[in-house]
Amino acid sequence: MIKLGIAGACGKMGRRIFELASYDKAFEVTLALERKGTPLIGRELGKLKVSSGPDGIFLIDLLIDFTVPDATEMNLEYVAKYRKALVVGTTGLNESQLKKIEEVSHVVPVVFSPNMSVGVNVLFSLLPEIYKRLGNEYGIEIVEAHHKTKKDAPSGTAKKFAQVLSEVTKQEIPVHAVRLGDIVGDHTIIFSGNSERIEIKHQAHSRDLFALGALKAAKWLTGKPAGLYTMQDVLFK
Amino acid sequence: MIKLGIAGACGKMGRRIFELASYDKAFEVTLALERKGTPLIGRELGKLKVSSGPDGIFLIDLLIDFTVPDATEMNLEYVAKYRKALVVGTTGLNESQLKKIEEVSHVVPVVFSPNMSVGVNVLFSLLPEIYKRLGNEYGIEIVEAHHKTKKDAPSGTAKKFAQVLSEVTKQEIPVHAVRLGDIVGDHTIIFSGNSERIEIKHQAHSRDLFALGALKAAKWLTGKPAGLYTMQDVLFK
Amino acid sequence: MIKLGIAGACGKMGRRIFELASYDKAFEVTLALERKGTPLIGRELGKLKVSSGPDGIFLIDLLIDFTVPDATEMNLEYVAKYRKALVVGTTGLNESQLKKIEEVSHVVPVVFSPNMSVGVNVLFSLLPEIYKRLGNEYGIEIVEAHHKTKKDAPSGTAKKFAQVLSEVTKQEIPVHAVRLGDIVGDHTIIFSGNSERIEIKHQAHSRDLFALGALKAAKWLTGKPAGLYTMQDVLFK
Amino acid sequence: MIKLGIAGACGKMGRRIFELASYDKAFEVTLALERKGTPLIGRELGKLKVSSGPDGIFLIDLLIDFTVPDATEMNLEYVAKYRKALVVGTTGLNESQLKKIEEVSHVVPVVFSPNMSVGVNVLFSLLPEIYKRLGNEYGIEIVEAHHKTKKDAPSGTAKKFAQVLSEVTKQEIPVHAVRLGDIVGDHTIIFSGNSERIEIKHQAHSRDLFALGALKAAKWLTGKPAGLYTMQDVLFK
Repeated sequence: MIKLGIAGACGKMGRRIFELASYDKAFEVTLALERKGTPLIGRELGKLKVSSGPDGIFLIDLLIDFTVPDATEMNLEYVAKYRKALVVGTTGLNESQLKKIEEVSHVVPVVFSPNMSVGVNVLFSLLPEIYKRLGNEYGIEIVEAHHKTKKDAPSGTAKKFAQVLSEVTKQEIPVHAVRLGDIVGDHTIIFSGNSERIEIKHQAHSRDLFALGALKAAKWLTGKPAGLYTMQDVLFK
Repeated sequence: MIKLGIAGACGKMGRRIFELASYDKAFEVTLALERKGTPLIGRELGKLKVSSGPDGIFLIDLLIDFTVPDATEMNLEYVAKYRKALVVGTTGLNESQLKKIEEVSHVVPVVFSPNMSVGVNVLFSLLPEIYKRLGNEYGIEIVEAHHKTKKDAPSGTAKKFAQVLSEVTKQEIPVHAVRLGDIVGDHTIIFSGNSERIEIKHQAHSRDLFALGALKAAKWLTGKPAGLYTMQDVLFK
Repeated sequence: MIKLGIAGACGKMGRRIFELASYDKAFEVTLALERKGTPLIGRELGKLKVSSGPDGIFLIDLLIDFTVPDATEMNLEYVAKYRKALVVGTTGLNESQLKKIEEVSHVVPVVFSPNMSVGVNVLFSLLPEIYKRLGNEYGIEIVEAHHKTKKDAPSGTAKKFAQVLSEVTKQEIPVHAVRLGDIVGDHTIIFSGNSERIEIKHQAHSRDLFALGALKAAKWLTGKPAGLYTMQDVLFK
Repeated sequence: MIKLGIAGACGKMGRRIFELASYDKAFEVTLALERKGTPLIGRELGKLKVSSGPDGIFLIDLLIDFTVPDATEMNLEYVAKYRKALVVGTTGLNESQLKKIEEVSHVVPVVFSPNMSVGVNVLFSLLPEIYKRLGNEYGIEIVEAHHKTKKDAPSGTAKKFAQVLSEVTKQEIPVHAVRLGDIVGDHTIIFSGNSERIEIKHQAHSRDLFALGALKAAKWLTGKPAGLYTMQDVLFK
């Protein structure tokens, strides 16, 4: 049984990961982290009390972190110190934070991915192939839509789509970010040229999509050597 | 029979207006205008020769103008001078050019509309009603898409949608402009709130949509007194 | 405080209505009904035990019923007998069952609607107006999509859209039903003609949409005289 | 220069192929076929007179046929008799007509494809791969939309999508056909499962898409040995 810690345990994603992990016999959730100083500390979550780390990290096998860049930065230090595996779904990280993930992955195994869903990861791997077969007379733009409380724009997922496509097009791919209502997460990639278009739209129906992806990553990562992995590794290797 | 002049007669819209007017017994096209100094001047278009104005305007009843802001500015002076009716579909006009349209409409009848289609004009009139019934817990954003050679962004149509909706929401409506391939013109208005969304998407299948709308406006305008009219007047009054 | 009974309390909709009513001080859930003979009878739901009726109905003020046609047919008899208000969201009812709803509404107040969302009800009231302004050169078809476990096809909502539109078009409106994955509920109404199209797509993000609508209907219905009401009455009157 | 014959030369597709071939120095259109007995026979098309075959076929290098099944059946006999290459875009053929194509391809080179666009053919080749990577927890349905004068439903393209996907899913793929207004041709393939969906929508902007594809096929086919080829061969081999 994997002893699981959840960072941001009271957030939208954290709560759902907590609930779904509770139903899954592969996991025992033994740590629920929230930011020091918030009124959430001490709140009960099932049989657990929400704490602010880092000491509890000593007792877990793996931390799942869907938080904000500053919190992730601290958690990176904790898992490195205690040598624990880490699954990171936080988006909006800056250059130095991305570099820290890379460094920490030299001492512990890390899955880092802007999107943990099967569908998005299938598209990450196949959209470049679609462009290559269409040929360079086709242009590409991306439109994404998320709930109005999302902090970063464009989404980490949209940035990743733009990146994998700009590698084959040798051009920057424009990204448009809609922030509206309680949309969980849409990403539409539009290819057009020569009297036709192809629109490829991924839609997340609920946060379960990402929570289940994170738990899948956690199982896969358990026992792996130190290294930086992505959902491509988790799902397709 | 209406003696018709077409400004920008060699452009995408102008050519299509020329062709469709040629099939319509209500019209005789007697003037095809293009910008002075271009190699298009003198070219044959059916039995006409492309000319650069303004003299030919003397002989027409009505000018249809889908050009660029500078050209429209000049054409406004011509129709005022010769007292000819005017249908304007040019977008991207600046404040002073908009003011000139208003002034000219004191002496000649003018239809000015960013979009001549029935569908878009139905939406101009009904979207505010949809918002009012949904209630103010719903947010709105607009995504439009046009061919990559379109000069202005966002489109005049998208700006008009944003305007009629901001009048009822008392908020600015974000607009995202995709420029890709040969898309004739899409406009999607997204309302979301309270676990649901409504997406209203208008799609132009070809430029015939706008050309036929302009000809409908031309017929309607013939014989009208001086004044500033819109497609709402043409279609629904 | 409204004493609430929930029919189909262990189903997808019933559970969600139960949870959301538990958070709402206007309600006390005092009855959770399930079909006689299923292993669900006796199960605990919060402080309640799931029962099979009809006796418990005596103690409630209002029953919310999102079940299947046969179960709704029985519940209609129960609420008539005990004179309790009723909110019905069940779809796929046959002619005789629809007639029974009408009859029962002579003795108790009933809200009956194939869809309890604000958005869908706004569209029920405004789509006929959109068609009237477009004019009869435009055709209409409907595409709906729901999860693969949905029992009726097309959905009650799609049938209602087809009905309100066939009243103005004087023609039958084709409906296409996609049954796939865990789609909560999409309805797309497509108008096309004259080189353009308008697609109006409603998407339910989660069942909360319908559960909250049902609770809104329950509050509105409390204290109303016997009669047959729809969500149009609840939302707009 | 390829001496080109066009069957159905006065139809929507035929006229467009005629126009585009006239602009292309690789082609000389020397035969315009229409059905015997129609008033179209004898009409002038540029410098050609529309005729009813088969004698003119003797003088061409290649026939492009976007007609109806019965006409294609006859044209198959003509090209076999005179040993001419053939590009067929006709859809809705029955089993015996499909068999005849196969037979004729033993004596002359034939490109036969339900859709001549680059985009659709890229999707024919890559959608099975998308399904394989998503895994068998995902279901698939197809929605297509065409103008209301289209004779066959579902479209040949939709049937081909269903076929290539049923080969990997080992299941029948439901197809829904919308017939509305003047829609040139949309095909949407929806994959859904596990809290997510992917919608892949191809849209033809105008018939130029198919006409240019047919001309591309004609160039590719010229000089090839007898055999049955598809647009996959034309585009990707």
